[in-house]
Amino acid sequence: MGALRLHSLTSIFAASSSSAGISYRSVRSPPIFRCHHRLRLPPRRLTTASFSAQSTAEKDAPKQTEDPKSRVQDRVITPRSQDFNAWYLDVIANAELADYGPVRGTMVIRPYGYAIWEAIQDYLNVKFKETGHSNMYFPQFIPYSFIEKEASHVEGFSPELALVTIGGGKELEEKLVVRPTSETIVNHMFTQWIHSYRDLPLMVNQWANVTRWEMRTKPFVRTLEFLWQEGHTAHATPEEAEKEALQMIAVYSKFAYEETAIPVIAGRKSKSETFAGASKTYTIEAMMGDRKALQAGTSHNLGQNFSRAFGTQVVIVPIWKKDDEKTGVLNAASSVREVLKTAGIKVKIDDTDQRTPGWKFNFWEMKGVPLRIEIGPRDVSSGSVVISRRDVPGKQGKVFGISMEASSLVAYVKEKLDEIQASLLGRATSFRDSNIVDVNSYDELKAAIGEGKWARGPWAASDKDELRVKEETGATIRCFPFEQPEGRNKTCLMTGNPAEEVAIFAKSY
Amino acid sequence: MGALRLHSLTSIFAASSSSAGISYRSVRSPPIFRCHHRLRLPPRRLTTASFSAQSTAEKDAPKQTEDPKSRVQDRVITPRSQDFNAWYLDVIANAELADYGPVRGTMVIRPYGYAIWEAIQDYLNVKFKETGHSNMYFPQFIPYSFIEKEASHVEGFSPELALVTIGGGKELEEKLVVRPTSETIVNHMFTQWIHSYRDLPLMVNQWANVTRWEMRTKPFVRTLEFLWQEGHTAHATPEEAEKEALQMIAVYSKFAYEETAIPVIAGRKSKSETFAGASKTYTIEAMMGDRKALQAGTSHNLGQNFSRAFGTQVVIVPIWKKDDEKTGVLNAASSVREVLKTAGIKVKIDDTDQRTPGWKFNFWEMKGVPLRIEIGPRDVSSGSVVISRRDVPGKQGKVFGISMEASSLVAYVKEKLDEIQASLLGRATSFRDSNIVDVNSYDELKAAIGEGKWARGPWAASDKDELRVKEETGATIRCFPFEQPEGRNKTCLMTGNPAEEVAIFAKSY
Repeated sequence: MGALRLHSLTSIFAASSSSAGISYRSVRSPPIFRCHHRLRLPPRRLTTASFSAQSTAEKDAPKQTEDPKSRVQDRVITPRSQDFNAWYLDVIANAELADYGPVRGTMVIRPYGYAIWEAIQDYLNVKFKETGHSNMYFPQFIPYSFIEKEASHVEGFSPELALVTIGGGKELEEKLVVRPTSETIVNHMFTQWIHSYRDLPLMVNQWANVTRWEMRTKPFVRTLEFLWQEGHTAHATPEEAEKEALQMIAVYSKFAYEETAIPVIAGRKSKSETFAGASKTYTIEAMMGDRKALQAGTSHNLGQNFSRAFGTQVVIVPIWKKDDEKTGVLNAASSVREVLKTAGIKVKIDDTDQRTPGWKFNFWEMKGVPLRIEIGPRDVSSGSVVISRRDVPGKQGKVFGISMEASSLVAYVKEKLDEIQASLLGRATSFRDSNIVDVNSYDELKAAIGEGKWARGPWAASDKDELRVKEETGATIRCFPFEQPEGRNKTCLMTGNPAEEVAIFAKSY
Repeated sequence: MGALRLHSLTSIFAASSSSAGISYRSVRSPPIFRCHHRLRLPPRRLTTASFSAQSTAEKDAPKQTEDPKSRVQDRVITPRSQDFNAWYLDVIANAELADYGPVRGTMVIRPYGYAIWEAIQDYLNVKFKETGHSNMYFPQFIPYSFIEKEASHVEGFSPELALVTIGGGKELEEKLVVRPTSETIVNHMFTQWIHSYRDLPLMVNQWANVTRWEMRTKPFVRTLEFLWQEGHTAHATPEEAEKEALQMIAVYSKFAYEETAIPVIAGRKSKSETFAGASKTYTIEAMMGDRKALQAGTSHNLGQNFSRAFGTQVVIVPIWKKDDEKTGVLNAASSVREVLKTAGIKVKIDDTDQRTPGWKFNFWEMKGVPLRIEIGPRDVSSGSVVISRRDVPGKQGKVFGISMEASSLVAYVKEKLDEIQASLLGRATSFRDSNIVDVNSYDELKAAIGEGKWARGPWAASDKDELRVKEETGATIRCFPFEQPEGRNKTCLMTGNPAEEVAIFAKSY
């Protein structure tokens, strides 16, 4: 399964959507050290300078009142090169990933899209369990007073709140907030559950829907209601909380690299970009494709990356013209399916006779299936199949005469799937690295940002200086990456003072 | 894992919570035939006459503002015989299944309780997939006008709606309903997705939170927000829709019997009890324990039934007095755990030294673990363990000298777990059957209901007669069971006219 070409889905793993923050907060005695980590589908913000093209395009995006059905029926897909935003919406509609809900800004997640979320859940639930978390469910209605108690929350979330004011036909005495996030209610419950050190660490995780009243929405990028995962933990010592925060960011990071082939950059947020109320926020930052990159097919590559995690890895398209060919071809397709299935490969036969093979090739390419197996009458006679790689377009990606013999076919398919994963990660990494510029002065930083790239340079300046960079270039510190360049003495690119770390600056979505 | 003693959790599978309704409704052309099926945690209503004792007790229930913590700390559990309702709340709090949320009527589902829901999801997701359903996610905010369109919905749900009237700081032009159920929004989307017969059948399933503004709430029985599963399908023919509805009720029923050992009665609802808007509603009806039954330990038995589905099947309690005994005992416990784990049995060691073995015995009994393995220094020397069955209290349930040798230990544990499952189902079935009275006249019906039992008898009378029964006895037709008595000619218990089926009458919660 997988929405492989939708670059936006890759942004599930993008920076601000996967932050881990820890807040040292004293609740009763003993002091409790908290840690939150979260992941969402969809992410709220893409985090890359190079994505500004899309951000701009979005301003002119068709409003969601546009009916996507007509496009689906005609299977019209705007070329990306012509209008990135229209292409994006067309692909989501045609691949049947999501549809608009009746309330402005809401989204129906369709089976193909929801399966991605389930695959993420399956993967991460195992990791969370391994790291000691338990799943729970907290109520989604939060007393308004809880939000007011948290100054940072009021400021951050008030403009985005959905409020229930009527319940059971009556005006409520206290308005209820439909959760935009669960910190306040989790904190409230933690104080009831934690009586002593013996109750620590307390590590819970929740998969839930959250609501934020977004004015400008877009399927999977920003919607009024979205699904996410939020982890909340409490620890006896700040060291343990820190360790937990780092461990969870590592889990996300590993997932991004190994399962989705997205070369994220993990690091620490600067103070001014830290989650409100947290003392530190860690992040993984993904570089998304801008329009230029899309022209080079790179966003396409990023977006193809769900093959490993989401597994509908192979589609078989049987091809026949005459009725007397049909049975033989379908039988061969079934037996190939069984062979692959037994080997743990996800495989589907598209044997409908209402569509031509060509239509099916396009359809499954659009759905993002990385390998296609074609079986025609001649293949049946020769006991072989044709295999096409989605990441290598046209005839170059097509190999004829692969034997149907079980062990060799399985070996071939597995090898190709591994090659695709490695190739995607490799390409995405090159794309990322070729778009990060090492800078040693503010002028160099400005030049890099001006070219739509990311700038990486030593930083030991003030929050005020950071704000100045933002105002003058539009870029913010995405993170202080965990992986720091070795060797050379560092001097702050802004002040010339000694600097301990390099920071990465980029425009964010 | 499992909340084995909590009878209320067994009611997940109770009647009205697991209804499958089909609605024949024409949407555009072609006509589409719909089918809904749903399951919830928690259920909204228990469905049994014999449960009226609890219903009465509930009126005097402590309001949820009572702080359950003090009871937890002292581990005070009110005897069931003294106050069923207090016992119920005590057990939920002490077994850490759930806790009250800050908003009146809301519930926090804690790990031990949530794991039950996850186990249900794991089981049913497989079944849904097998039967062709895809999981999806629909937005939870529904335009108020949608609810108004459905007359039956307005009537049924209006008093229970939570309404969002403010979003992003502004008064909304149209109020939004926080979904009490998803029929209206699903129908809206279905009309967009179904263009021709080729798009049918369309079978979707959703796991979601739903909200109903309940005035009288109680953890797991009735809460303002609860988690549930709702299936929605559309079919080309009424026969296919009917088949689907029956298939899904069979899935629920099989689950109830085979996984939870609850002998539900599957059948069809009478017209007046049919889900508003549906042409037929099927149901599985579970008989819950009333207070009398609780005294006989029957509700306890019903409630123990999660052992198979939810698997924390075995707890090992190592026992030592002196420090030099500790290592040997813990090593033996670990090796027993490994042996059982390898055999696919869920097992946990409780090796904390902050509690006495006696305290642990009680704790795990309360949590409902069906088998306990005790290992002391003497057992280590003799290479054996002591095994206690939770369903056979006291010394009679305790067997000494079970060999630690892997193959014999595994065989013994598996056999005992199977015995417990069979024994629970057997006892619950006896309880059920001994409380269903075959009646042939209205007088006999009244007598049976008067004794707190269920009445089963031939029925071919009018809706008006059905209403009369309700008014005079408090009982309603729970269902026309699929399993009908064979043989004898049936005459309607009320009218004396020929009757095709027997109906089951009972008071419902």
